[in-house]
Amino acid sequence: MSKPLFQTEIQGISQACLLRNGCDAENAQAIAGNIAKAELDGCHSHGMFRLPGYVAALKSGKANGTARPEITAGPLGSAVIQVNGCGGFAPLALQQTQAALIEHAQSIGVAVMALTNVHHFSALWADVEPLARQGCVALACTAYLPAVAPAGSQEPFFGTNPMAFAWPRKDKPPLVIDQSSAAMARGEVMIAARDGKPLPPGVGLDQDGNATTDAAEVLKGVMLPFGGHKGSSIALMIELLAAGLIGEAFSVEAKRRDNGDGGPPRGGMFFLAMDPSRFGDAAWGSHSDSFLEELAGVDGARLPGDRRYQARAKNRNQGVCVPQSLLEKITQL
Amino acid sequence: MSKPLFQTEIQGISQACLLRNGCDAENAQAIAGNIAKAELDGCHSHGMFRLPGYVAALKSGKANGTARPEITAGPLGSAVIQVNGCGGFAPLALQQTQAALIEHAQSIGVAVMALTNVHHFSALWADVEPLARQGCVALACTAYLPAVAPAGSQEPFFGTNPMAFAWPRKDKPPLVIDQSSAAMARGEVMIAARDGKPLPPGVGLDQDGNATTDAAEVLKGVMLPFGGHKGSSIALMIELLAAGLIGEAFSVEAKRRDNGDGGPPRGGMFFLAMDPSRFGDAAWGSHSDSFLEELAGVDGARLPGDRRYQARAKNRNQGVCVPQSLLEKITQL
Repeated sequence: MSKPLFQTEIQGISQACLLRNGCDAENAQAIAGNIAKAELDGCHSHGMFRLPGYVAALKSGKANGTARPEITAGPLGSAVIQVNGCGGFAPLALQQTQAALIEHAQSIGVAVMALTNVHHFSALWADVEPLARQGCVALACTAYLPAVAPAGSQEPFFGTNPMAFAWPRKDKPPLVIDQSSAAMARGEVMIAARDGKPLPPGVGLDQDGNATTDAAEVLKGVMLPFGGHKGSSIALMIELLAAGLIGEAFSVEAKRRDNGDGGPPRGGMFFLAMDPSRFGDAAWGSHSDSFLEELAGVDGARLPGDRRYQARAKNRNQGVCVPQSLLEKITQL
Repeated sequence: MSKPLFQTEIQGISQACLLRNGCDAENAQAIAGNIAKAELDGCHSHGMFRLPGYVAALKSGKANGTARPEITAGPLGSAVIQVNGCGGFAPLALQQTQAALIEHAQSIGVAVMALTNVHHFSALWADVEPLARQGCVALACTAYLPAVAPAGSQEPFFGTNPMAFAWPRKDKPPLVIDQSSAAMARGEVMIAARDGKPLPPGVGLDQDGNATTDAAEVLKGVMLPFGGHKGSSIALMIELLAAGLIGEAFSVEAKRRDNGDGGPPRGGMFFLAMDPSRFGDAAWGSHSDSFLEELAGVDGARLPGDRRYQARAKNRNQGVCVPQSLLEKITQL
């Protein structure tokens, strides 16, 4: 492990690495900011661990490190904002279009952003938290590469298909849910494989379709959806929203056209933003806050995202230790 | 078991029962239609089994059997349609407002309907399937009465909080997902308790917080969410959408104001409808159909809702057998 690194240091190292490998300043800054946020929140699987993947996608020419998103349609007379990511990475595309989404949701109550032609490799909570900080209820999802078996089968077919939901609170940080449709996030399985740690049961099957707790075997085999057929249905819904609806690739299609460089495939993202002040209840904020406080008071229960916020507060002061081997790998890049 | 009853017979018996207990013709027809559809699809837990609950809510005066929904705000300059259910049951409220929701989604791509002050006691798939049959992608959810423990706790706090998702297909019936946030639908647990059948493990805890497969004990104790903390987060998201956002009661609040007559509490429903032809991909239908056919071809996988459609085809010809004791109970009502 390294000595503790602070958020600005992580951002600086990541930014330098991305700049050197084909990102322009704005893309490097947006991606590095996202990586530093993930490390700060203790989400190491979406932190510097992802840099080699970003670099692979840049080096192979699959992703465009100098892309800017283009709003191609909406919002005049429509609740749908269509954005072409132009083959770039998601962080800058989202940074540059989020104002349009929020503005439109505030104007007519509900807006959907359909983002296509983009490479998403980051934590989804980081994409919805800013929307809720600006007052919107937000729901986001994205497909990926086939890694999860539909309930009852043994074949990688769905992506790990994360969904995130953010709810604005008045004097508190937003409530943020972010969960993979897999029984465990793929990034966590990758970390477990790297560290040689066993998985809990029910996470995946090996290449022969047998249950295993060996992370490396699961990465070669297939992951299972969370919650059996119900989690499987959510993975399916995400495929339909983030691919079928918006005209992008389903996870199985993304793989067929991907060059296998290890970086994120090209795909789409679905964002729903709603302005709660447009739904008829002026007291929505205090009403929901009381409810969330009651929930937080239930013995054994906890609010989603609270652990991340705790890690954020702690790591902001103390810094984050990164595996030395990872730092060396990044320096070499 | 009764002799096989056909859809029209089930509808007729249910309608007569509701008319005799305080529903007007239109409400009786809408509710009975919903009950008959549930029986036809093999969802007995949402069929005639629910009639005593409807009658209880009518007799106690909690629900208004002659209510008409009122569209109170939208859609001019807004993507949000606010509907006051006026204390009636959901089936007629939805029947009379669904055209407005579809029309608005077709007009601007996305629309949300916030339905408040309504008593929902029916299957949610029956509420979204018609939206998809008319070309919309639909997402619906509703809270209920506290029955499910947040992950890590033993206290009934969330409702069984179903969500339904429907996806239109060209020459096929829509793909429809309908799932409770509980590990098993409460209606199914009630049926198991009635029939004295054991539950699979993981469905719930008894009054002392111990795991049990005894359905009657789970009804006295607490149900668990599906998929651990991920299902728990979905139950929470549904509370926030179907109560917090639209100004209605959270499940814990619904219980506090409910008279405990056994009928459905007053609460709210959240509907999102989207017109896929407004998202920029003219080929969305064939693209998604190919994907769904590929999924259906995966060994061991099945499309959500297919079992119901199979039951529907079979039961339309053969009729449905209803427990004699239930029929007698309904006749007495």
